[in-house]
Amino acid sequence: MAEHFADRLLAAIERAGSPVCVGIDPVYDRLPKELQRKVRDEVEQTEFINIFCLEVLRIISPIVPAVKIQSAYFEKYGSVGVDLYELLVATARDDGLIVIGDVKRNDIGSTAQAYAAGHLTGTNSPDAITVNGYFGADGLKPFVDTAADVGKGVFVLVRTSNPSAATIQDFADANGKKFYEHMAEQVAAIGGGEELIGGSGYSCVGAVVGATYPDEARRLREIMPQQIFLVPGYGAQGASAADCAAAFKPDGTGAIVNASRSVIYAYQREEYVGMDWKKAIETAAEKFADDIRQACSLK
Amino acid sequence: MAEHFADRLLAAIERAGSPVCVGIDPVYDRLPKELQRKVRDEVEQTEFINIFCLEVLRIISPIVPAVKIQSAYFEKYGSVGVDLYELLVATARDDGLIVIGDVKRNDIGSTAQAYAAGHLTGTNSPDAITVNGYFGADGLKPFVDTAADVGKGVFVLVRTSNPSAATIQDFADANGKKFYEHMAEQVAAIGGGEELIGGSGYSCVGAVVGATYPDEARRLREIMPQQIFLVPGYGAQGASAADCAAAFKPDGTGAIVNASRSVIYAYQREEYVGMDWKKAIETAAEKFADDIRQACSLK
Repeated sequence: MAEHFADRLLAAIERAGSPVCVGIDPVYDRLPKELQRKVRDEVEQTEFINIFCLEVLRIISPIVPAVKIQSAYFEKYGSVGVDLYELLVATARDDGLIVIGDVKRNDIGSTAQAYAAGHLTGTNSPDAITVNGYFGADGLKPFVDTAADVGKGVFVLVRTSNPSAATIQDFADANGKKFYEHMAEQVAAIGGGEELIGGSGYSCVGAVVGATYPDEARRLREIMPQQIFLVPGYGAQGASAADCAAAFKPDGTGAIVNASRSVIYAYQREEYVGMDWKKAIETAAEKFADDIRQACSLK
Repeated sequence: MAEHFADRLLAAIERAGSPVCVGIDPVYDRLPKELQRKVRDEVEQTEFINIFCLEVLRIISPIVPAVKIQSAYFEKYGSVGVDLYELLVATARDDGLIVIGDVKRNDIGSTAQAYAAGHLTGTNSPDAITVNGYFGADGLKPFVDTAADVGKGVFVLVRTSNPSAATIQDFADANGKKFYEHMAEQVAAIGGGEELIGGSGYSCVGAVVGATYPDEARRLREIMPQQIFLVPGYGAQGASAADCAAAFKPDGTGAIVNASRSVIYAYQREEYVGMDWKKAIETAAEKFADDIRQACSLK
């Protein structure tokens, strides 16, 4: 039987020494100058994106336990891009990284089943994916069941890190309960079955909880004690390591913080001007891991 | 400048004589016996899925104005499946059908931009896609802006047709306003700008409104007067033509009803036993188009 996803993730975090995840969001125009050519068409861009992403994986795999690969930046190039996404997922897993496929899929049950098969089973599929819970339990169940069957995980969107999240997710009922808290209760219920909990006490069903709202993260930590939080928002989106700490339990477990652009495009940040782009990524990844390690252990 | 999506869709409905859309949700195990072989692996299945889908397109294109291609059933096969999805989108557009890519994508703004580029621009992209509004305005805007720029459309999930939709979408505020009504107000606001409205008076931003809840559809028709409704739920999901009629305006415009499994797997329905599979699909598509035509004109 496949080892439980939450147990594998916690073991990887323990080995790496910090609960962090680097997000791979490759945009051609932001690649290092030496990887930009006068390409004739979009498909040619993918060759250089490939070189860049493989190099990023090589640099970060000794530093961080996990990587989040954002499907959108590959789907931009159609099936050619999806091919590259699959290659990167497989390479990252071979490098010993826990791989989260950031796909945010969602649909009615029969269709969710097809998404789950495509994104959680098969040789080149990631260790976990992100999903959107708008359809409720019957749209989530195929993802959850498939993940549990094959030792993988899902992270359900609860509180997102973007500026307009509140206009939708703060919609409140007569008792002041907000929609994202209602979603969190659903996730806790769906992801709380005994058969879904690993030896670590955590479920294979986690939650996406943006770091840009630390007060909410504390409240959500109470509603979802068995969920591992995937925490976006650090760095380019404006959250500090202290903001991220709210997502963790007092023992320093229960969350993994993601940074994407602030790490993989570190060579474009003022503080790294003049530094070789690979060295800049390495330095930023190390600093990110240190920052979060300290913020968690201060709890 | 590209012709407006809503105007193109309404013209296609006018030509075909019925506001219907056939959904392509191919599942290998449900293909006609003559298209099932002892295949060695999953990828080989896609060859037969391809033959089936091309045949379905050939049969339905003289009968209906539009087709909705469900990405999940292609993503199931990874990049090989995505290749096939692109081929079918291109073929359906060549056949003169309006093509809706059912992808339900969603993310923060920068990432939504990449999804919009991948799924709405480029030679093999559909005329419109479905999106999920959980991120709010800044996650929707890249889809809306890109669609408007290239004469395409988006359909935002408002009320879905599945059994557990209510547990999430009926979450109500102190005044009894439900979450899906709040989402509808957001969609009306985001999709209501003058520059988004075509000559027909409809916006390139539509809404997905499940037919399984006709009372809600009537209310949503009031909240979103400029949105074309994409209406799933007819047939296999249990809604009747009369249920679907609630999504239309009194003049019979404003919605397009989708049926997937009840049409493309018609040969497995009791009433068509013994009929050639192609004839069964054709008959079911004609009956579906007639049903909806009558239900709308009765309004």
